[in-house]
Amino acid sequence: MIRYIVSVVLLFSISTSIRAQNPDSVQLRKIFENAITNREAYHNLEFLCKQAPGRLLGSPNSYIAVDYMRDYAEQMGADTVFLQQYITPAWIHESSDAGIVYDDGSEYALTIDALGPSASTPKEGITAEVIELTQVEDIERLGREKIGGRIVFFNRPMKPTFINPFAAYGDAVDQRYWGPVKAAEYGAAGVIVRSMTYNLNDIPHTGSCAMRENRIPAVAVSTMDADYLSSELKKVPGLMLNINVQATDTALTTYNLIVDIRGKEKPEEIILVGGHIDAWFNTEGAHDDGAGCVQAMDVLRIFNELKIQNKRTIRAVMFMDEELYQSGGAAYAKYTKENGIDHLLAIESDAGAFMPIGITFSADPDFIAEMQQFKSLLEPYGGGFLKKGYGGVDINPLKEFGIPLAGLNTVRQRYYNYHHCMSDTFSEVSFRELQMGTTLLTGLIYLVDRHWESTDDN
Amino acid sequence: MIRYIVSVVLLFSISTSIRAQNPDSVQLRKIFENAITNREAYHNLEFLCKQAPGRLLGSPNSYIAVDYMRDYAEQMGADTVFLQQYITPAWIHESSDAGIVYDDGSEYALTIDALGPSASTPKEGITAEVIELTQVEDIERLGREKIGGRIVFFNRPMKPTFINPFAAYGDAVDQRYWGPVKAAEYGAAGVIVRSMTYNLNDIPHTGSCAMRENRIPAVAVSTMDADYLSSELKKVPGLMLNINVQATDTALTTYNLIVDIRGKEKPEEIILVGGHIDAWFNTEGAHDDGAGCVQAMDVLRIFNELKIQNKRTIRAVMFMDEELYQSGGAAYAKYTKENGIDHLLAIESDAGAFMPIGITFSADPDFIAEMQQFKSLLEPYGGGFLKKGYGGVDINPLKEFGIPLAGLNTVRQRYYNYHHCMSDTFSEVSFRELQMGTTLLTGLIYLVDRHWESTDDN
Repeated sequence: MIRYIVSVVLLFSISTSIRAQNPDSVQLRKIFENAITNREAYHNLEFLCKQAPGRLLGSPNSYIAVDYMRDYAEQMGADTVFLQQYITPAWIHESSDAGIVYDDGSEYALTIDALGPSASTPKEGITAEVIELTQVEDIERLGREKIGGRIVFFNRPMKPTFINPFAAYGDAVDQRYWGPVKAAEYGAAGVIVRSMTYNLNDIPHTGSCAMRENRIPAVAVSTMDADYLSSELKKVPGLMLNINVQATDTALTTYNLIVDIRGKEKPEEIILVGGHIDAWFNTEGAHDDGAGCVQAMDVLRIFNELKIQNKRTIRAVMFMDEELYQSGGAAYAKYTKENGIDHLLAIESDAGAFMPIGITFSADPDFIAEMQQFKSLLEPYGGGFLKKGYGGVDINPLKEFGIPLAGLNTVRQRYYNYHHCMSDTFSEVSFRELQMGTTLLTGLIYLVDRHWESTDDN
Repeated sequence: MIRYIVSVVLLFSISTSIRAQNPDSVQLRKIFENAITNREAYHNLEFLCKQAPGRLLGSPNSYIAVDYMRDYAEQMGADTVFLQQYITPAWIHESSDAGIVYDDGSEYALTIDALGPSASTPKEGITAEVIELTQVEDIERLGREKIGGRIVFFNRPMKPTFINPFAAYGDAVDQRYWGPVKAAEYGAAGVIVRSMTYNLNDIPHTGSCAMRENRIPAVAVSTMDADYLSSELKKVPGLMLNINVQATDTALTTYNLIVDIRGKEKPEEIILVGGHIDAWFNTEGAHDDGAGCVQAMDVLRIFNELKIQNKRTIRAVMFMDEELYQSGGAAYAKYTKENGIDHLLAIESDAGAFMPIGITFSADPDFIAEMQQFKSLLEPYGGGFLKKGYGGVDINPLKEFGIPLAGLNTVRQRYYNYHHCMSDTFSEVSFRELQMGTTLLTGLIYLVDRHWESTDDN
């Protein structure tokens, strides 16, 4: 692995007193001014949201989204536009419903969405008695006798008292991710899980679960209907639920979209910026993650339009299938390995188009320490911190190559209003916040490209 | 004036290594947990927005809003709830319209709202030729010959290239605030000004102008219709505009609402937290500034509910009439003077219910330097900075008493989507972001009350 040192020029040049004359500061200002006055990223996001919503792996809209961004990249003036083709298992959602079935034959429809990759049910669905739990561990404790043949209802709300909503999600999402696996292992007929959101409303939030070989039907229910179901369970012993999921397992050919602005000095060294082009079947996928895709593409547009003489190749990747099987990230890592691709840094934007607040790095401490040189330059554009943390789901497989990974961080208090649900729409994205994110991504890449040198050159 | 020094206890106690055991850290955590799990502030905001929108000075809804918050304060358990009555001139908006009048008699209606306090027109409005300008200074340059009898159209857009939208507003708002004054001085028939927003849409944003004695009709036009009017002016020489504003000037009795949780040691020393209860006639006034009012009231609720033994009196003030004549702030300052009220600190929340990012202080440098002691404690709750800056419009008149003033700062990239227009609705406020603001306000007040001591005690 090559390692990097900051060039002496930078250590001198960022002193605050001369910042006004600092060429980096001037260039970052130009990047910001371009980003905040150009609406192409925003229009691209509108297309993805309005013309290609629900673009889950294998869906017609997933291909439309990739084609659109490829065409945009070509007309925008990228040097290389490339569909990285790969074959993958896929799960195609068709329909999902659930409802309480009372003894008198009457039904009460619940607002649900299937989890991916839920098992399909017979056409008439499955009907079974419900058991309400709050912990995945309860499955083992209760054992096959209590769980077998029943529909397990996980109903532990997200805790509002984490300051960081991502931490609250991490604390609650085991119910959705591991709950169905464990329930299936103990012979459950199905799983229904409370939506991962703080809101009490009628909107289901879907997501993936870890079930692969041994699968059962699994759905997410809106928080309001989760409360209703819970209250009915207290009143009606032996309450029955019907779950109906229609979906198809298949294998298909799909694509990551790879777009390059070639490096003028070291084109073989790559700085990657990416987002994921797929989105759940129930959403426009604006914050998650149309935003990351159009930002990554806009980084290239800005390099191109400002005629920045980038030494390295700046690469935007629109990863397929972050949501279900993470097959796009795996395919890109395989491609990296087979072709010996030399990445300098990989950055992912998948935290929503909210105001950026900093960058987290999954990299060694020396690398992160040296990144601090850029902090005062990036701070005006939302680079409040450059610190240790997570990169991103799609770039994570690149970790095996020892590449520094980075993730865009945003103000996240509103994130679970939108996550994996119908509320994640284009209208909920602020043009200025989207483009502050684009500015921060472009600025970091510009500084890394300009100031970091491979030690093997020295 | 008394001055304050930080107590030695605090200097010791905030060292990071013992933060977990730090009683302040524990108390701030309790404050946050209470704020983020209690929906009373949010419900109060819903009432103000849905039951008392357009609550401009003198409007029936302005009284309904004050009454509601007074009743809430009483049932919430405040020690003192007091309507500070005062008499003030007021301007009551009834209706406003404008349109292009073509030679053939056809009309094209423009989407406008009156500025406050626009002059009223005759019932049929006024009709005059339009002259488009971009600078207030153009009035003087063109003189009475070109301006007299014409309707002046100020059409300089807000510049998107300020990082801080408040700076962009400051750069453009002279057209709205001073433009009508200058136009009236040169004999203009009326003024129509481009709305202060980055968005290109059909929504007018109103606001105040400085006209007092010599007034003419003045309105704000949506950005889309500003562009349309501008393009028509290029095509049609001598284009005529009709402006119709119906409003009444009056004098009336109104109120600031003052609510106290009494200090247990020094009740005569007051820490004030406030927002303004009024809102323009065209808006629910959610971010501006129902949010500040319900946050200020929630600070008191939290002190009361957590049984915090506050030494000083914690006072919430809902100021009337920030938007038009700033009469509430002036009346409170007068009341302060007449009664010799001893304020330790006054904080205003009027930057929208967006994620808080820090506090600015209008105070002497020593005071601000000592505030840094609280930074690491407040940082997790959005207290990213405690620095020199603005307090707030309503508390600004207290400056003459040498009181340190403070303002809540927020993420502001979306602010001009909402400012003074119909888009500023309850649904656009995030519960969590609102209550992060409440947490930061409560936290700062808690720390100031607990740790600052009057030098005259030492």
